[in-house]
Amino acid sequence: MMENQKRRIALKIAYDGTAYAGWQRQETGLGIQAVLEDTIAKQFSEKVHVMGSGRTDAGVHAEGQVAAFDFHHPIPAESLVRALNANLPDDIRILDAMEVDGDFQPQYGAKRKTYVYRFLNGPVMLPNLRYHTVLVPEKLDMERMKEALPVLEGEHDFYAFRSAKAENASTVRTIYEASLSEAEDLVENGTVYELKVTGNGFLYNMVRIIAGSLLDIGRGRIPQSAFQDAIESGNREVLGVTAPALGLSLRSVEYENLPVWPKEKAFGK
Amino acid sequence: MMENQKRRIALKIAYDGTAYAGWQRQETGLGIQAVLEDTIAKQFSEKVHVMGSGRTDAGVHAEGQVAAFDFHHPIPAESLVRALNANLPDDIRILDAMEVDGDFQPQYGAKRKTYVYRFLNGPVMLPNLRYHTVLVPEKLDMERMKEALPVLEGEHDFYAFRSAKAENASTVRTIYEASLSEAEDLVENGTVYELKVTGNGFLYNMVRIIAGSLLDIGRGRIPQSAFQDAIESGNREVLGVTAPALGLSLRSVEYENLPVWPKEKAFGK
Repeated sequence: MMENQKRRIALKIAYDGTAYAGWQRQETGLGIQAVLEDTIAKQFSEKVHVMGSGRTDAGVHAEGQVAAFDFHHPIPAESLVRALNANLPDDIRILDAMEVDGDFQPQYGAKRKTYVYRFLNGPVMLPNLRYHTVLVPEKLDMERMKEALPVLEGEHDFYAFRSAKAENASTVRTIYEASLSEAEDLVENGTVYELKVTGNGFLYNMVRIIAGSLLDIGRGRIPQSAFQDAIESGNREVLGVTAPALGLSLRSVEYENLPVWPKEKAFGK
Repeated sequence: MMENQKRRIALKIAYDGTAYAGWQRQETGLGIQAVLEDTIAKQFSEKVHVMGSGRTDAGVHAEGQVAAFDFHHPIPAESLVRALNANLPDDIRILDAMEVDGDFQPQYGAKRKTYVYRFLNGPVMLPNLRYHTVLVPEKLDMERMKEALPVLEGEHDFYAFRSAKAENASTVRTIYEASLSEAEDLVENGTVYELKVTGNGFLYNMVRIIAGSLLDIGRGRIPQSAFQDAIESGNREVLGVTAPALGLSLRSVEYENLPVWPKEKAFGK
């Protein structure tokens, strides 16, 4: 019997971050990591350490956070999806699970991460959108915003695009895509837009600073060249505000050598 | 000064019905009507009776409920949107407000009502959708579902399409449109679909019975001809289950003689 052999399990996780103090287990509030670890410990009587691909802040959501943990319990990885979802709160869902190599570390080797930032450009916040979309009631110049984004793409020193709290040694990152698209037309109630940013990594608050600056460009509060100016000068002050956490969601994390997720193979299309 | 003259004010209201026992003020739980009446009474020191276009059940949402009340306070109708939203809970939003003729009664004279029913056809419920979308994990035959809908359109006796609790004298209604469309493609997480039904009125639970039956047609549990069979036989048993309340939303209510809502004129497009 191999049932006590240690395996590394990778999870793909979605969460509504509204009720949480962020991904990480911490003293000052409930972290999603802690909920996962405590649920697994209670359900399988095994203490585990769940490593995430990176932290998300309080209020930030995920549609495809990736995490991993070492596990001795013999339950098949594919059965963990249903088993854990039966015990987790409904604002945290396991989307997929699989056994991976013992050297897979979700926080290292992530090749690409994609974040989306959602906002409603309309007169009044709609109740069904209130936990994951930010209201922007001002008139926005969408062309001005769309044209401002491409200068972010490529390898740049994003020193200006980080919170004062950031402690990263290097501030050079590569952005593969920065785009703005219409997600939903709500007619007289406005339009939901989605800013999507894919990169090889992000500094602390970087996507929220990009989102807030993009909105300030659309409002005409800062020049259309603000992103270029910030890359060249390294000066945080030429950018706009840091947009609120609740509009942000970690959409996906991709790895070089991770197998295809089972559900991706299995469902429908 | 005309400031104490009685005016009739019409409101367009959106709500997330999750936390409420339905539209109507009642003994057994908090109704949205009661929240509105109590908020107005407290804010303007004036007791009002808010009449809705019709009840919505516990857990059912609205994106365009219409209500009206008589009011002596002199605040301009257009200022009520911001004023009330500052005091209402964030799961109830006033989308629009205007002064209307004193004989406007939202529960009578509604020409058309549109409901939508949202479901996620995918493997796992996504946290951000959990309050207003129903999970349907089974494989669905979408063509079979789409082809089943048109027989609902037109004037029919919908006797079979109502809850046993219904007390309507006549069960004849006209459906102008019954359609199913893809609302959002979530790739490996599935697809959100929206059933949209527009009619001159609906029996109690009628849209939820249509939605539940449509899903059962898609699952192959009942024949594609179930809607036709139910119209002809008046037999509730040839239809499928009543779908859960949380997937349902009252999208809009249209009247013959109501002026254009101010925000519809004002915002953006």
